[in-house]
Amino acid sequence: MVASLRLPSLTYLFTSPSAALGRRSKPVFRRGHHPPSPSPPLAAGFSAQGTAAVPPATEERAGKQKSRGEERAVTPRSQDFNAWYLDVIEHAELADYGPVRGTMVIRPYGYAIWEAIQDYLNVKFKETGHSNMYFPQFIPYSFIEKEASHVEGFSPELALVTIGGGKELEEKLVVRPTSETIVNHMFTQWIHSHRDLPLMINQWANVTRWEMRTKPFIRTLEFLWQEGHTAHATPEEAEKEALQMIDVYTKFAYEQAAIPVIAGRKSKVERFAGADRTYTIEAMMGDRKALQAGTSHNLGQNFSRAFGTQFTDENGNRQHVWQTSWAISTRFVGGIIMTHGDDAGLMLPPRLAPIQVIVIPIYKKADEKSGVISAASSVKEALQSAGVKVKLDDSEQRTPGWKFNFWEMKGVPLRIEIGPRDVSSGSVVVSRRDIPGKEGKVFGISMEPAVLEAYVRDKLDEIQSSLLQRAKLFRDRNIVDVSSYDELKEAISQGKWARGPWSASDQDELRVKEETGATIRCFPFDHPEDIKTCLMTGNPASEVAIFAKSY
Amino acid sequence: MVASLRLPSLTYLFTSPSAALGRRSKPVFRRGHHPPSPSPPLAAGFSAQGTAAVPPATEERAGKQKSRGEERAVTPRSQDFNAWYLDVIEHAELADYGPVRGTMVIRPYGYAIWEAIQDYLNVKFKETGHSNMYFPQFIPYSFIEKEASHVEGFSPELALVTIGGGKELEEKLVVRPTSETIVNHMFTQWIHSHRDLPLMINQWANVTRWEMRTKPFIRTLEFLWQEGHTAHATPEEAEKEALQMIDVYTKFAYEQAAIPVIAGRKSKVERFAGADRTYTIEAMMGDRKALQAGTSHNLGQNFSRAFGTQFTDENGNRQHVWQTSWAISTRFVGGIIMTHGDDAGLMLPPRLAPIQVIVIPIYKKADEKSGVISAASSVKEALQSAGVKVKLDDSEQRTPGWKFNFWEMKGVPLRIEIGPRDVSSGSVVVSRRDIPGKEGKVFGISMEPAVLEAYVRDKLDEIQSSLLQRAKLFRDRNIVDVSSYDELKEAISQGKWARGPWSASDQDELRVKEETGATIRCFPFDHPEDIKTCLMTGNPASEVAIFAKSY
Repeated sequence: MVASLRLPSLTYLFTSPSAALGRRSKPVFRRGHHPPSPSPPLAAGFSAQGTAAVPPATEERAGKQKSRGEERAVTPRSQDFNAWYLDVIEHAELADYGPVRGTMVIRPYGYAIWEAIQDYLNVKFKETGHSNMYFPQFIPYSFIEKEASHVEGFSPELALVTIGGGKELEEKLVVRPTSETIVNHMFTQWIHSHRDLPLMINQWANVTRWEMRTKPFIRTLEFLWQEGHTAHATPEEAEKEALQMIDVYTKFAYEQAAIPVIAGRKSKVERFAGADRTYTIEAMMGDRKALQAGTSHNLGQNFSRAFGTQFTDENGNRQHVWQTSWAISTRFVGGIIMTHGDDAGLMLPPRLAPIQVIVIPIYKKADEKSGVISAASSVKEALQSAGVKVKLDDSEQRTPGWKFNFWEMKGVPLRIEIGPRDVSSGSVVVSRRDIPGKEGKVFGISMEPAVLEAYVRDKLDEIQSSLLQRAKLFRDRNIVDVSSYDELKEAISQGKWARGPWSASDQDELRVKEETGATIRCFPFDHPEDIKTCLMTGNPASEVAIFAKSY
Repeated sequence: MVASLRLPSLTYLFTSPSAALGRRSKPVFRRGHHPPSPSPPLAAGFSAQGTAAVPPATEERAGKQKSRGEERAVTPRSQDFNAWYLDVIEHAELADYGPVRGTMVIRPYGYAIWEAIQDYLNVKFKETGHSNMYFPQFIPYSFIEKEASHVEGFSPELALVTIGGGKELEEKLVVRPTSETIVNHMFTQWIHSHRDLPLMINQWANVTRWEMRTKPFIRTLEFLWQEGHTAHATPEEAEKEALQMIDVYTKFAYEQAAIPVIAGRKSKVERFAGADRTYTIEAMMGDRKALQAGTSHNLGQNFSRAFGTQFTDENGNRQHVWQTSWAISTRFVGGIIMTHGDDAGLMLPPRLAPIQVIVIPIYKKADEKSGVISAASSVKEALQSAGVKVKLDDSEQRTPGWKFNFWEMKGVPLRIEIGPRDVSSGSVVVSRRDIPGKEGKVFGISMEPAVLEAYVRDKLDEIQSSLLQRAKLFRDRNIVDVSSYDELKEAISQGKWARGPWSASDQDELRVKEETGATIRCFPFDHPEDIKTCLMTGNPASEVAIFAKSY
């Protein structure tokens, strides 16, 4: 009952009362770094393609938030996954709804996760030879029309600036949904000779896609991302680059986010609007739906031909460059939430957690206070100077019990409790977020800085591995190997992923989507080498495909 | 002659042939973090308020770039400051023109300077208690109208999204020119009690202002910046915060950018649209025009009243919050170029230089090559592992002389030359960018890593101080203390800054602007304490004002 009372207010801005699902007349398949919205209508958290910028009930909503108060618990994940997701985002203060339908304000705690993602990837991009730069976000409309499949994929979801400085513009400007077109316009001016290649750049930027159904982090009208763009002299180099970057993303997902993504190639139907090949990392969320968490495209010469991006090769011949683009966005934050969270709330992998350790002093009598607070402060200082991201919660408005729940809900990996008896014994109590109750609690860890630091580091590493291991087990339990369409349908109807040999047509693939709601997430790189029999046609198939319902 | 031939192509996108200067009907004074465009028409580098998104001559321009070739020298600064500025930006590959009039592509070398600015400020903002977050860039048009002076200041230069997802929107969306309105909309939902205060956040973002006259870095339709926003329980706290942040900017300018800005308060005429008080740092460029390089605003309760941002104080009374906002943008990169550059090109302060040391191997005979290259590589490795930003230019297409000029033009603070004789003697030659010719050249510096590293660090520090010292001398030589309007006019007509006691009216201030082209840049914090006589009215004046022409 609590959940059903809460949902309308939480999803208000993302769900219009007049929600007409599927108003978009034709499905658009070859679209973007983000996959198309799933076809089957879901109950909540989706919004219609409204045109009103500001809902009338902003004040009402603010009022409700206040009256609901802070004490209301997060809906258990096991009870309602979508309500849980929205609750976690609200309660953990990860994000809030912007005033314009489908937009999102990323709050400090959520933004800090994005910063941790940026910090890691930015180093990796530079190590692999890319330079950061910045392209304007306004793109002449005519640019978008130059590459045939690109315009087909993106034109339904563009935001257009038509008025500037009080005047109607002669040519409408597109607010960038992705930058391949403007990048190629510039590359054409910068690239002359083979000596100018490879040209390898990246930008951290905001992008806009006028999405019909939105969900915080997962699909918003505006989101933040990085987009890499490279130009090469040969198709082999471009292919190598596209594969290298999906590998960077895969390692990031496993090692930093503890998300055991499956890397592979997209089907022709699902690939990026303008790419020859799209590589993807697909993650299984806690509700077993797939999330496309990062993509890397081999663009071939599609954009270089459309924009005349040529170079003079070593023999003096003019050739079109071979290109790639690749992106990871704030959607990944949603992936982290939905991979690791549990009934109690968020559970963050230590390497990306804005706060790795929360220190909570516990005392009852006034004469205990100063000793406990002083010990807690020392512990905090010691860990902080060792480079651990630690916070001391010494606020007096809340009980220790309230704080335990609060920081658990915020997903902090480790909790250190310090009471009067701990002060006397010079030790602390350490609790793991990933192991609930007494099992995850260890008493008598020495306060001595070097000992405590080593213990904390060790535990953070253990939690990091444990989250990955748990997610792997969950993933593998929920992928079914199928050899017929009936088996595929059965697996999908159970909410699982179906993996089976596939060499059927685009039409067959679309039929599976229509009949089951599942799409080919990827042809995983990792698959048995032997020739098998296509689950749909019985013809020989050299690859397996993974089908799943997806965000 | 070279300069005049070049200008049309370089300034093409930023100068429309039909440039109707001053087409904006009324001057807009209370505008933004960036000051209004100066009134007096200048010859080049300015653009008219055109509506065409893409100029017809893009190909012609690209063609010209190619035919001009790389060897063409930068126009000497002493000959034509504006042509020099545009040349430096092009030749040093700091930025390029975007396809939409007035937009700019920030190239890797220019972006790396911005990253160095970000790296420093981001730490300072966190140290002073601010958290990063992200607000959507689309703002309902109605928000802009809520604060009276804000709409007056910003409405002439808005970019408006009117079409989204193929449909006309019911309410136009403003592409953020600044975020006070949307920030307050959200603050109103987050702030309830005095315990929620102070609320101190910052965002790194792009902003859009439909400027009539544009110039790369200095004034572009879209630019990058950080904008801090804070809310406090008392006016004293807000004032303290506004002053603290202008102090952070001042220290950054002096210590990192080696720019001796003058910090002070803006006049009522010049302050931010919606602020009670605006603090500014004003920098003197190489042509002696002023550049507003950063601002911090005490917003009072102007936005909190317009948006109903209230809190319950300790006595249970509802009060409106007191606010600040403060910003530094990519314009600062233009300030660095125009402060330190010389006839030979860019001159970068070591602390913000993407490359601090360039290593150039010199050899003629084939048998000298391997020894020289190997020594040069060792030197590079040694400095790199010591944390110096160093690059080895071992390309074979260019002569050492060409490389000397090229890296000088790129503003690299130190050059290390290594030839066969240096290899034999185990030493290198070190040249300073800021001291031309033999005077800046020291022979026989040991290659021994520890010795060389210490020497390099020492020289980089010396250059950093020397740039600041030189800029200070230049600044002080070009500020004239005036005590009458005639003296003020004389100083301005000589291209200098005029500093004098001022307590006259807004009308008098506007008259000075009309008659001389100069505006009050600020009432500097640093001024004689005694009461003086207003240069305009002869009335008592407790402050001095600095008048100057500005960007």
